Amino acid sequence: MFRPEITVCDCTIRDGGLMNNSKFELATVRKVYECICASGVQIVELGYRNSKKMFSTDDYGAWRFCDEDMLRKATDGIERGDTRLAVMMDAHKAFAEDLLPKSESIIDVIRVATYVKDIDKAIYIANDAIAKGYQATINIMAVSHALERELDEALQQVEEETRVMAVYIVDSFGALYSEDVDYLVHKYKRYLKTKEVGMHCHNQQQLAYANTIEAIIKDVNFLDGTLYGLGRAAGNCPLELLIGFLKNPKFNILPLLDAIQEVILPLQDQMEWGYTIPYMISGMLNVHPQEAMKLLSLPKDDPARRDFVKFYTRLADEAT
Amino acid sequence: MFRPEITVCDCTIRDGGLMNNSKFELATVRKVYECICASGVQIVELGYRNSKKMFSTDDYGAWRFCDEDMLRKATDGIERGDTRLAVMMDAHKAFAEDLLPKSESIIDVIRVATYVKDIDKAIYIANDAIAKGYQATINIMAVSHALERELDEALQQVEEETRVMAVYIVDSFGALYSEDVDYLVHKYKRYLKTKEVGMHCHNQQQLAYANTIEAIIKDVNFLDGTLYGLGRAAGNCPLELLIGFLKNPKFNILPLLDAIQEVILPLQDQMEWGYTIPYMISGMLNVHPQEAMKLLSLPKDDPARRDFVKFYTRLADEAT
Repeated sequence: MFRPEITVCDCTIRDGGLMNNSKFELATVRKVYECICASGVQIVELGYRNSKKMFSTDDYGAWRFCDEDMLRKATDGIERGDTRLAVMMDAHKAFAEDLLPKSESIIDVIRVATYVKDIDKAIYIANDAIAKGYQATINIMAVSHALERELDEALQQVEEETRVMAVYIVDSFGALYSEDVDYLVHKYKRYLKTKEVGMHCHNQQQLAYANTIEAIIKDVNFLDGTLYGLGRAAGNCPLELLIGFLKNPKFNILPLLDAIQEVILPLQDQMEWGYTIPYMISGMLNVHPQEAMKLLSLPKDDPARRDFVKFYTRLADEAT
Repeated sequence: MFRPEITVCDCTIRDGGLMNNSKFELATVRKVYECICASGVQIVELGYRNSKKMFSTDDYGAWRFCDEDMLRKATDGIERGDTRLAVMMDAHKAFAEDLLPKSESIIDVIRVATYVKDIDKAIYIANDAIAKGYQATINIMAVSHALERELDEALQQVEEETRVMAVYIVDSFGALYSEDVDYLVHKYKRYLKTKEVGMHCHNQQQLAYANTIEAIIKDVNFLDGTLYGLGRAAGNCPLELLIGFLKNPKFNILPLLDAIQEVILPLQDQMEWGYTIPYMISGMLNVHPQEAMKLLSLPKDDPARRDFVKFYTRLADEAT
């Protein structure tokens, strides 16, 4: 038995872009788009619509900005079925004026990522997007670091001040256990009487998929995944696992396997994502993975890269 | 708050031995033994005590047989603390006569692995071990394939006919979801009034750690893990994650990180374990990983090795 309300969003190119400054080949993005559409997954997020005032176009690839002409190049001629196109806007790195009216854009969904402290910016951008004709979500990042009272207030504000379709729990640090997922879902649902709850996980402790299942059990209906888990640090909930779990007959796993074998696995030569001990340590200590990413960027033959005892000891000291 | 009844068993060398015919260097086994003892983990399993009539000593390494002299070489001079030494005997590949009286052995615990159909053999070997002075467990493999009535009968028999300290749920195919774990734990506990329940997971669907946590929540007290998840196919519940989760102050994660950096990561040049799409497919379809292992043993440049669509289609056809 499946729950028809469940909406799955693929964010391979968007979250994966945090590992390569959003520098994906156009052919890769087209293949991902084609296969996600063919799989029946409802939303595909092809990158950020962030500001060129905040990110240099020399350092970042096209999928950090998702100009309309790039999105058209990525999607032209591909049968999209019922799949909607999304981009993410960071509340603190994007501006409402960079969004055209919906009639001039092929984007359907604006997902606004925010820290709790930037919730007013997020609400402004989300409301602007809705006024321009888009659907919108608000994705509250680093929720494992949110102070209880501030998170409560933010949820209350989002409920009262916006018409976003969903508000996400974003476990940016891969630090949540199933009991934390339960607690947060319960809290979100208490405030968000008119909105869906979403779940976006990272895999630092190999719990991204399990926590997504836990969220499903607790009636969360917006679920994020990425192909082969491609995403920041240890990556995300693998979309192929999620689609294998959901019983909705409209989903087809084969196009996902096709995309993985054709364009995702080859990326392993250039990018390193997935479970490693440094990411595990940062997840366990509930800290940003940036220190682990720095360690893993050392040359492979540098002994410091594998000195996990030292890394754990340093991070544990800093975390306290 | 921690549960003092929880007993953790490291089976890195034993389950990892299924990926290299138990051919580990002595120095590797010594380092694992030393670090497990230093971590406070209660049981360390250094291999199989299987029969040389069933396995050729030409094809299999010392840790498939665990002769007493090899076990002494692996442990001599190392501070063991409270850590007990275990070996596994396969009910259908081991003989009771290969086990010395406890007074002549440094082994403490005999773990008897069995399919449901071989439960009488397992009970015989376990009872022989207990009579000789050892502690024993029975580990019911491939439980996701067990027929309900046969499993019920086996559990009833084990309860009535043995004094083993624990009976394990063994998810050999990495096919269980959390609801299956709940169901099986409930069933085991219904029959096993005088014994503990154990949990041994495989990671084909990235659920080994999550399912182990689920078992903990359901009052399972015997938990298996391996360093960096080293084990058959996608491997096991990573011991470092499990020890990070358990709050018992006697556990120390640093020696585990030490062993991983010094002797486990270097094995990645010779052995491939962990999440891959072929293992994911076999877990999702609830089949033995042998076909996936065969696929992954093809040369890296063989296109068939990455034809996941074809592999899924074939396995799905065969599984029905």
